[in-house]
Amino acid sequence: MPREEGKRPVVALIGGTGNLGPGLALRWAHAGYPVIIGSRAADKAQATAVELNAELGNELIVGMENVAAIQAAEICVLTVVQGVHEAALSDLKDELKGKLLIDATARMEFPKITPPAPPSAGRIAQTMLGDEVRVVTAFQNVPASAVRKNFRHPLDSDVLVCADDVGAAEEAMGLATDAGMRAFYAGDLDKAIVVEGLTSLLVSMNRHYKVHGATIKVAGISSHQTE
Amino acid sequence: MPREEGKRPVVALIGGTGNLGPGLALRWAHAGYPVIIGSRAADKAQATAVELNAELGNELIVGMENVAAIQAAEICVLTVVQGVHEAALSDLKDELKGKLLIDATARMEFPKITPPAPPSAGRIAQTMLGDEVRVVTAFQNVPASAVRKNFRHPLDSDVLVCADDVGAAEEAMGLATDAGMRAFYAGDLDKAIVVEGLTSLLVSMNRHYKVHGATIKVAGISSHQTE
Repeated sequence: MPREEGKRPVVALIGGTGNLGPGLALRWAHAGYPVIIGSRAADKAQATAVELNAELGNELIVGMENVAAIQAAEICVLTVVQGVHEAALSDLKDELKGKLLIDATARMEFPKITPPAPPSAGRIAQTMLGDEVRVVTAFQNVPASAVRKNFRHPLDSDVLVCADDVGAAEEAMGLATDAGMRAFYAGDLDKAIVVEGLTSLLVSMNRHYKVHGATIKVAGISSHQTE
Repeated sequence: MPREEGKRPVVALIGGTGNLGPGLALRWAHAGYPVIIGSRAADKAQATAVELNAELGNELIVGMENVAAIQAAEICVLTVVQGVHEAALSDLKDELKGKLLIDATARMEFPKITPPAPPSAGRIAQTMLGDEVRVVTAFQNVPASAVRKNFRHPLDSDVLVCADDVGAAEEAMGLATDAGMRAFYAGDLDKAIVVEGLTSLLVSMNRHYKVHGATIKVAGISSHQTE
């Protein structure tokens, strides 16, 4: 792993070959983070890493099986599809001990795209993983295609970050900022049910207005107040 | 009631003497709507109307007991405190028949300001009132103080409107626009649980960032797409 960028922690994207993982990987690699794409299949992870390094024009991203990816990383970002959220947490529980886990899962019920009922994905994760893992939720609402396509540019979408541990949330907010997104601390993990639910609202608005990238932004908090 | 403004429907604010009702009343009166402040106590409603007409510099707002207010109005906006939401609907069910009801109720659990679990306040209202009332949810997240204080100016906060009946939502969106707010159709009444929940996120952000008016805006939908 290239660590000469200095103090930046290694970030692993668990289930990172899906919709959201590649775009986040490009943004963090572009900002100088060592990035690992994790997948249940190492060869699939490696193929995605090769593809992303070509987009990046640099060799900052590597692919590994999920367990190895977690072991090599300080910060793990869970970008699995909603149907395997709990199974992935159960499988990876031991490896996640001592890590910061950023859970990007947003569940909704199809075909009516009904928002989820509590508990939030993040609360489920924190309960399953226990106190040895600091769970944060973030990135559930960012439009995956814009995250990837324009990875060298700021994103016109804000990130609402939830965690019981404000310090853990602040680490995730730093990552979001380095990825070109404004981030706001929105409260404990029980609040994350609302952030998850926003995804179904955005899907609903995309359908109604025939657009692809409806997003949410925060107003009424000036930038100096977020520092 | 002054109807010489033309085609604008009469709007009644049920429980309109609270935090949100007065500001909305001023905005609609300023836009030329005949406005009624409703309250369980007619004298309280009349006192609020007198106060608001003084702010407005005009006599466009009247105060009435809730039942009389509903009977005189085409559009009713429910701005009661969360604790009496279902009791108010139960009391006013017969009078609301045939009306458009805009429910602005956002519930949360104190002291942790936990967001509500489904069903949404709007779904509860639609179920209680039946098909003869067209229920829309809106205005749950607008900062009440800014709505009132700067009532002659556009508000830097968007309104997410939910309804099973898109036509009813569009009527509410027209009202929001006339009140100086951008409005977006966000889906059916089950989606409204998310809009309600946003209020607890905004309260949480106000506390964390020591501000008073954190709000949500929509990006990624251009204005011509909303027409």
